[in-house]
Amino acid sequence: MSNPIYALILAGGSGERFWPLSRVACPKQLLRLVSEKTLLEETVARLDGLVQRERIVILTNVEQETAVRKLLGHFPKENIIAEPAKRDTAAAVALGTGWIAGRDHAAVMLVLPADHRISDGDAFRKTLALAAQAAEETGELVTIGIKPTWACPGYGYIEQGKPIRLRNREELEGVHRVVRFREKPNVDLAESFLRKGNFRWNAGMFVWSVPTVLSEFNRHAPELADFISQLRAPGEFDRVLRERFAKLPRISFDYAIMEKADRVLVVEAGFDWDDIGSWRAVANYFQRDDQGNAANCAITALDSTNNIVFDDNGVTIALLGVHNLIVVRTNDAILVCHKHQAEKIKNLIGKLPPELH
Amino acid sequence: MSNPIYALILAGGSGERFWPLSRVACPKQLLRLVSEKTLLEETVARLDGLVQRERIVILTNVEQETAVRKLLGHFPKENIIAEPAKRDTAAAVALGTGWIAGRDHAAVMLVLPADHRISDGDAFRKTLALAAQAAEETGELVTIGIKPTWACPGYGYIEQGKPIRLRNREELEGVHRVVRFREKPNVDLAESFLRKGNFRWNAGMFVWSVPTVLSEFNRHAPELADFISQLRAPGEFDRVLRERFAKLPRISFDYAIMEKADRVLVVEAGFDWDDIGSWRAVANYFQRDDQGNAANCAITALDSTNNIVFDDNGVTIALLGVHNLIVVRTNDAILVCHKHQAEKIKNLIGKLPPELH
Repeated sequence: MSNPIYALILAGGSGERFWPLSRVACPKQLLRLVSEKTLLEETVARLDGLVQRERIVILTNVEQETAVRKLLGHFPKENIIAEPAKRDTAAAVALGTGWIAGRDHAAVMLVLPADHRISDGDAFRKTLALAAQAAEETGELVTIGIKPTWACPGYGYIEQGKPIRLRNREELEGVHRVVRFREKPNVDLAESFLRKGNFRWNAGMFVWSVPTVLSEFNRHAPELADFISQLRAPGEFDRVLRERFAKLPRISFDYAIMEKADRVLVVEAGFDWDDIGSWRAVANYFQRDDQGNAANCAITALDSTNNIVFDDNGVTIALLGVHNLIVVRTNDAILVCHKHQAEKIKNLIGKLPPELH
Repeated sequence: MSNPIYALILAGGSGERFWPLSRVACPKQLLRLVSEKTLLEETVARLDGLVQRERIVILTNVEQETAVRKLLGHFPKENIIAEPAKRDTAAAVALGTGWIAGRDHAAVMLVLPADHRISDGDAFRKTLALAAQAAEETGELVTIGIKPTWACPGYGYIEQGKPIRLRNREELEGVHRVVRFREKPNVDLAESFLRKGNFRWNAGMFVWSVPTVLSEFNRHAPELADFISQLRAPGEFDRVLRERFAKLPRISFDYAIMEKADRVLVVEAGFDWDDIGSWRAVANYFQRDDQGNAANCAITALDSTNNIVFDDNGVTIALLGVHNLIVVRTNDAILVCHKHQAEKIKNLIGKLPPELH
């Protein structure tokens, strides 16, 4: 690597699926769901040894800014940016690119979600270092592919093509051309992807050099390219962010750039990965009793099976004659939800008093 | 009435069915289940105008004594007695009889449970005054009969015989001979009782004169009669209670005395009555939404029906896709229970850590 690595952490998600633990001002990435640290803290810590702290920029939003700054009190103030309005990921990546390009026009940058669970930090850094080398050496957009473990219809899939070989690397180290992206297939199609074996999950992690991504913005999203170049003008960053961000188009980076780019690589993740998309996913990290009840706290259960129980404050939760429930307790709210209805938590929030959103 | 009326309130029950709200140190009669007052306070208040405060004696136990004294801070200290051990109702009635007989050997005494809900205080006092007149005039044991509203197999039933007429009263004021007591019939038998029309629920409320009950103790329970006479000896009450109470037999008053007595009367209750035997019974006093969810607090419910929700501290409880549950929250515990399993709450308590009993 001849150029320094920067990292853009996208931490502005809303995460309604974890209500009542998650709130507008405290979404999934700020929760301690599966360990003593929040997912955002884990994301930052995972970069130790790969990216210097002053080269990490974290995007949050105005509702969550206070909590993020408090959580990362040791971080340089200017490395945490609150988006003044809710746009999609294309605008967020443009904002981060402007921040990084203003500091180093030749940097390699990683784009990372703040709300995934990865426990093997060494393997993560090894994969990302390989992706950074691929990005710099080929001048292409690079994405990280997760080997699918089941035919999930809710994810985006990446179809891998031929392997490519990098300098000083073996041929089969897991860098491939991308044939195409496939968003949210139906279950049958997802099953055929798994059978074929050359499909990977798109985990929303990207790596590229600043010149490469600028060129892609210029070709496919000129309004965003213009926003980036204004951000880079000396002393203009704050004003441009304040005045222009809220007017940018609502569009995802995948749709605006990735799916339109001619040449994209995929690097196979050598690490474990979990996006912890629901309470059921969180429960995989809990202790489970012999009746299938999973809990992060002490529970007392009688004639009760396959329930999920979460408590953030040491209260005893007792179950009697109930099955397949999700029970979550916080200081000001309790949720009792059937497992099969958990997708509707966001609808429930609409019925709640605003102070609980 | 020529003799003063005393009242013995039996407030030593344990009430596990209301866990987690009820605890060993805070059973049903000390809860605010259906109004701003505890059931014990309501029981005491209901005697206003019928029994003078200094003639009311309340039996509690050592676990609950502190809470009872705090709740009834305006009460004479010696009118609250903590049973030093858990005996059944025969020993409790003997203890209360000794206390009253030591003050007035000719008193009429009412025996009342502390954990029933009666909203019509005027009708209650009218019925009890009639029962007191019957007890004094006839020298018999008198019980109060509740007109049954359904064939409950869990109650005791009283078979009414011929009506009797008291001085200055109409013949049909509702005083009858008791033919016999029938404990906990099966459902078929209970239904036949309802069809016959002359069966009443035994609500555990009794009225008699001190000489009458002393004579019955002498005949059917000489050990308890001896205990009473020792209690009555001047200055001996506290010592006798401390030294002898724990050694008394564990037996109910119904079994030890009522069912053996030759002549018993029943006075028909002119008041509403509810023993609030379960969370389902409590829910009858709650607001119910159009999906059949009953709650004493604000709830948010989506695709959820016929649930019962109780919260003692203003937390929001949200239900999603759940049916026929009982959800109860206190500061240190949450219960999620299927309605059809509520009878097993006492079994659940056995599995809980002792500090939550």
